[in-house]
Amino acid sequence: MNNAGIYHRPESEFAFLYTKDRLRIRIQTSRDDTKSVGLISGDFYLFAEEKWYQKQQLMHKNYTTDTHDYWEIEVTAPHRRLAYAFCVTDFSGTEIFYTDQGIFKYEEKFLTRDYLYFRLPYFQEIDRFKVPDWVAKTVWYQIFPERFYNGDPTNDPADVLAWESERPTRENFFGGDLQGVIDQLDYLEDLGINGLYLCPIFTAPSNHKYDTVDYYEIDPHFGDKQVFRKLVEKAHERGIRVMLDAVFNHLGASSHQWQDVILHGKASSYADWFHIDSFPPRYTAIPDSENAKDLNYATFNFNPHMPKLNTANPEVQNYLLEIATYWIREFDIDGWRLDVANEVDHHFWKKFHDTVLRQKEDVYILGEIWHSSQRWLQGDEFHAVMNYAFTDRIKAFFVEQSLSLSQMIFGMNRQQLLYRDQTNEVSFNLLDSHDTPRILTLCQGNKALLKALLTFMFIQKGTPCIYYGTEVGMEGGMDPDCRRCMIWEGQDEELRGFVKQLIAVRKQFFEVFSYGNMLWHYDDDKKIVSLTRNYKEKTVIATFNEGDPIEIKKAGQCLFGQNYHENATYQLLQHGFVIEELAK
Amino acid sequence: MNNAGIYHRPESEFAFLYTKDRLRIRIQTSRDDTKSVGLISGDFYLFAEEKWYQKQQLMHKNYTTDTHDYWEIEVTAPHRRLAYAFCVTDFSGTEIFYTDQGIFKYEEKFLTRDYLYFRLPYFQEIDRFKVPDWVAKTVWYQIFPERFYNGDPTNDPADVLAWESERPTRENFFGGDLQGVIDQLDYLEDLGINGLYLCPIFTAPSNHKYDTVDYYEIDPHFGDKQVFRKLVEKAHERGIRVMLDAVFNHLGASSHQWQDVILHGKASSYADWFHIDSFPPRYTAIPDSENAKDLNYATFNFNPHMPKLNTANPEVQNYLLEIATYWIREFDIDGWRLDVANEVDHHFWKKFHDTVLRQKEDVYILGEIWHSSQRWLQGDEFHAVMNYAFTDRIKAFFVEQSLSLSQMIFGMNRQQLLYRDQTNEVSFNLLDSHDTPRILTLCQGNKALLKALLTFMFIQKGTPCIYYGTEVGMEGGMDPDCRRCMIWEGQDEELRGFVKQLIAVRKQFFEVFSYGNMLWHYDDDKKIVSLTRNYKEKTVIATFNEGDPIEIKKAGQCLFGQNYHENATYQLLQHGFVIEELAK
Repeated sequence: MNNAGIYHRPESEFAFLYTKDRLRIRIQTSRDDTKSVGLISGDFYLFAEEKWYQKQQLMHKNYTTDTHDYWEIEVTAPHRRLAYAFCVTDFSGTEIFYTDQGIFKYEEKFLTRDYLYFRLPYFQEIDRFKVPDWVAKTVWYQIFPERFYNGDPTNDPADVLAWESERPTRENFFGGDLQGVIDQLDYLEDLGINGLYLCPIFTAPSNHKYDTVDYYEIDPHFGDKQVFRKLVEKAHERGIRVMLDAVFNHLGASSHQWQDVILHGKASSYADWFHIDSFPPRYTAIPDSENAKDLNYATFNFNPHMPKLNTANPEVQNYLLEIATYWIREFDIDGWRLDVANEVDHHFWKKFHDTVLRQKEDVYILGEIWHSSQRWLQGDEFHAVMNYAFTDRIKAFFVEQSLSLSQMIFGMNRQQLLYRDQTNEVSFNLLDSHDTPRILTLCQGNKALLKALLTFMFIQKGTPCIYYGTEVGMEGGMDPDCRRCMIWEGQDEELRGFVKQLIAVRKQFFEVFSYGNMLWHYDDDKKIVSLTRNYKEKTVIATFNEGDPIEIKKAGQCLFGQNYHENATYQLLQHGFVIEELAK
Repeated sequence: MNNAGIYHRPESEFAFLYTKDRLRIRIQTSRDDTKSVGLISGDFYLFAEEKWYQKQQLMHKNYTTDTHDYWEIEVTAPHRRLAYAFCVTDFSGTEIFYTDQGIFKYEEKFLTRDYLYFRLPYFQEIDRFKVPDWVAKTVWYQIFPERFYNGDPTNDPADVLAWESERPTRENFFGGDLQGVIDQLDYLEDLGINGLYLCPIFTAPSNHKYDTVDYYEIDPHFGDKQVFRKLVEKAHERGIRVMLDAVFNHLGASSHQWQDVILHGKASSYADWFHIDSFPPRYTAIPDSENAKDLNYATFNFNPHMPKLNTANPEVQNYLLEIATYWIREFDIDGWRLDVANEVDHHFWKKFHDTVLRQKEDVYILGEIWHSSQRWLQGDEFHAVMNYAFTDRIKAFFVEQSLSLSQMIFGMNRQQLLYRDQTNEVSFNLLDSHDTPRILTLCQGNKALLKALLTFMFIQKGTPCIYYGTEVGMEGGMDPDCRRCMIWEGQDEELRGFVKQLIAVRKQFFEVFSYGNMLWHYDDDKKIVSLTRNYKEKTVIATFNEGDPIEIKKAGQCLFGQNYHENATYQLLQHGFVIEELAK
C-alpha cells in the first residue's frame, strides 16, 4: 500500500459538522491504491464498554484527483462526541489502521488503544460553519456601475463620453450610475437573476472606485443615498439581493485621512492608520511612480495612490466595522464582497464576521481570494471566496485546451476538497469579471462554446455569476477593456434568450445543483463528459461534447440543451450539450 | 516519484511567521523518495518584473517519519508578502513543480503562471502565533494540593487521615493545603523548578476539586485568599511562576447554579447554563448512576455530578471570563491550565485568549488535550497542550518497549510536525500526572531507567514538568493511586540530587533545548541513540544506551551523565546516558 498518500486532518475540511447533529468525514488515499476504507467510530467514554472498535462503516469514494482518491461518510453520535479511525484496505487485501498517531497494523493490540483515535470531542453548534440559506438559490449578476446604464445624465462627470463611443481606458467616464441600475431592474428581473453584485459605489476619483475617499457617501456621479436606498428597495421587491464591494485593504490617496498624514506627518492623528516605515511618507501625486518599490509606506500592488490600511489599529477596525454595519443597518444590503481580502489580517476579518452577522444574521460574506483559502474558510471569517481557482480549470479545458478532460475534473475536485461542503455550496463561481478578460473574447467570439461553458458552470456546486453583458454577447480584453459600456442597442437576443433559459433551469433545480452529489463520466480522447447530480429524489444528468459530433443515448427527459430529439439517441455537435432529468 | 506523499498547507504549521519578519516553510514528501526540494519565491506583484521563478533556494530535510520526509526553510520578504512554490527532485533526477493548484511538470510554461503559487499574502504581526518568553525557560512542578504538604492542620477536613497512613481512594483526605506549598517553597527553590502547576484549588467537595462549586473561593480545606495571595507573592519572589487549573467544561453538581436548576427546572435562571435535553434533568445524588448513558443532560464522561456548561451562552461566557481575569487581576497568576479543554467550544476559547491576554500579556494558556490539537493551536486559542501524545512515544520505547528506537523518533517527529515551532518550544512535556500511573511505577521501580527517561524528556523541545514526588522516588498506579501523599520522610536523596542537577542543566542550556534544531543518530538493534541540539554557537549532544553496555567515543565536554571518564572513550551501561557540550 502507498501509505504516503494517506491523510486526514481532524476538525478541518476533512471532519466537519454539516448540520447540528451530522458530521462529515473525509480521508485521502493514494490514487487507485485502495480498495475500501472503513470508519471505526464511537463514543470515547464508551470505548471499553461498547467495544465499538470491532465494527466498521464503509466509506464512499466520491472524488479522485491526479494523485489521490477521497472517501467520505456522514455519521452522527447520540452523545454528540465522536472518536474515530480508519481501516484502509488495498487491492492486495493488506489492511492498515490509520489513526491520530499515524499508521499501525490492523491488529487488536492497536485497535484497543483508545488514545489512538481521532476526535471530534463535542459537536459544538456555535463552531459549526453556517451559511445563509438564500445564497444557494441565487444566480448573481455583476455590475461595474460606471458602465451599465446612465439613468441620470445630470450627475455625469464633466468629461463624460458618449455611451459606447470609445474603448474604456483607466481614466475615461461614460456616465453609468445607480439610477441606471434601477431603470434596468425590469431587464434584470426578466433575465431571471436574483443577486446583484455591485462593484464599489462609494466616493472615489477613479472610474472603478477602488480608491475610496469616503465610505459614507455614494459617489456623486453614481447618485446619492436616496437613489441607492430606492435601488435596494426595488431590488428586494423583485426578490433580488444586493451585495456591495468593501475595499478595506487600502484607502484612496485623496481621502482626508491620507491627506492629513501628508500634511502633518507623524503628528497626524491618522499617522498609525497606515503602514508607514518612516516619516514623512514619500507620496507624490505622479500617477505611476517609477520607484514604487522604494516607497516608504505599504500600498496595494505598489500603487502609491492606494496606501494600505493598518487594520491592526483598533481605531481603523472600529472605523471600518462601523461602515460595514452602517450600510446594512441603514440600507439593508445583503452581502459584502471584500476586495483584496487576502492581504487584510485574519484578526480583523473575524471581528468583521461577528459584527456584520450580529447586525443581520443572513448577510453573505464573500472574499476576493484567488488562491487556496482554507484559513479564511473555517467558519469565522468568510462564507466563500470568488472561485477563480475552480472555474479556471473549466476554462483551461473548454477554452485554452491546456488541460485534458480528466485533468480538468481532477483539478475541480482538488479545489472542492480544500473546503467544507457548506462553502462549496455557496462558492461564487464566475467565468469572468472586471479583473479578467471577458469570456466571449477568450472564446474568440465562439458563442456555441460560450453557451457550453456557461452551462457547465451553472450545473456545478456554488452559485454562478454572470458578468454584465455576457448575456448579450459583450466582448473585451484584459482590464480596462473588459469594462466596456453595456450593449443596449443591438443585443444578441438569441444569446440572451439562452441565458434566461439557463438561469430558469438553475433556479428550478437549485437543490440538485447546490447540494446534490456528483458523479463524473468522461472520455479524454473523445472529449465527451457527463456529470450526474443527485439530490434526494431528483437526478439530473448533463452531457457535454467538445470533440467531434457524436451520437448519444437518451437518458431521460430533456430540460435544456441543443440538438435534442425525441428519439432513443441524439446527436451532439462540437460544443453541444444536453441536460436531462432522470425518471425517479 | 511518489507524488501522493507531497503535501503543503498554506497559512498553517506548514507556513507560519516565526518572527515579525521571518516566515518558516515546510513541505512533506514521500520518505526516501526525494533528493532535494527547492523553494521558488518572491513578491507576487514583482513576478513579471523580477522573474524570480527562475531561482530556487534549497530546503533542508529536518525530519523523517515512517512515511514521510519533511523539508524546511526560513525566508523573509522585503515587502512583507510572499508567493512561493516548490521544485521537488527525486533520486532519478525527475523534477516536479508543486503548486497551490497541485503538481505540474517543472517547465517554463507552468513556472510562469503567477496564479499557481502558494501565498502568504501579507506578513500580519497581529495574526502571528506569539508565546510568552518566560515559558521556554521554565521547568514545571505539578502539585496535587491535597497530597503535597499539610501546612495548616486547622483547616483539615473532618475525616482527615494521617499523612501516608493509607492509599488514596476517590474519597479520602490527607490534609494537604496551600500553606503546605508555601512551607515547601524552600524545598522547591532548592530543587530548581521555576513553574508551579497547581491542580484545582477552588471550593469543591472532592479531594481532586475538579467538581467546582465556587470559582471565587479557595477551598476552605486548602486555605483562603490571603494564603493564596501569599503563595503567589512568595513564589514570585523566588522567580517561580504559578499556573492554576481552570475547570470550565463542567460544574460540580453541588454548585448553586445546578442546584437552582434542580429546584426550579425550566424556570431557573440557570436553565440555559447547561445542556439539558428535557426538563426536569434526571439528576440523582447516587454517586455512580447505573444508567448514566440515559441521562437527559450532558455531562463530563457520563458523570451525573459533572453537568456540562453551555459555553455558547453569553451569560456563561461572561461568568467564566470574569473568573479567568479575576485571579490574574487580583492574585497575579501566570498561567491557566484548561481542564477537558477539547470538549469546550473554540468560540469560547478565542474569547478566553483575547480576554486573558488583555488582562496580562504574558499569561501562558495550556490546554488539556491528549490528541492532535492543530485546531486549538492556530495562535488565537492556546499556546500549547499537555504533550501526552509526544511523551507517550518516549515511554513506548524506553518503558513499554512497544516501539523501536526509529519508531519512537518517527512518532516524536510526527507529533512536532503538527504544530508551529513556537508551540513546540512551549509544549508542556510530562511523563506522568494526576491522570496517569506514576512513571517510576511504569518503570517497575528501575531508577536508572527513570533517570534516562527524565533526561531524555528534559533535552526535548518544550518545557518539562515533574509530577510532585517523582524526584524522591514516589510510586503509584492509575488514578487515584498516583495521588499518594508526598514523601517527606525517607526521600531518595540520591535521586533528588540527580533531578536537581538535571534541572540545573536544563535551565543553563534552555536556549539550546527550547530553540535549537534537532539531529538524530540511532541504531535500532543496539538500542543506542544520540540527539544533537544546536542553537547559535552552542551545540549539545546527548547519547542514551538502552541496549547492552557499549564503548562510546567522547564527543566534547561532559555536562551531565553516568559512567563518564576523562578518556577518549567511555562506557555506557544499559540505561546509561551522557550529555556533552561540543567545542565551538
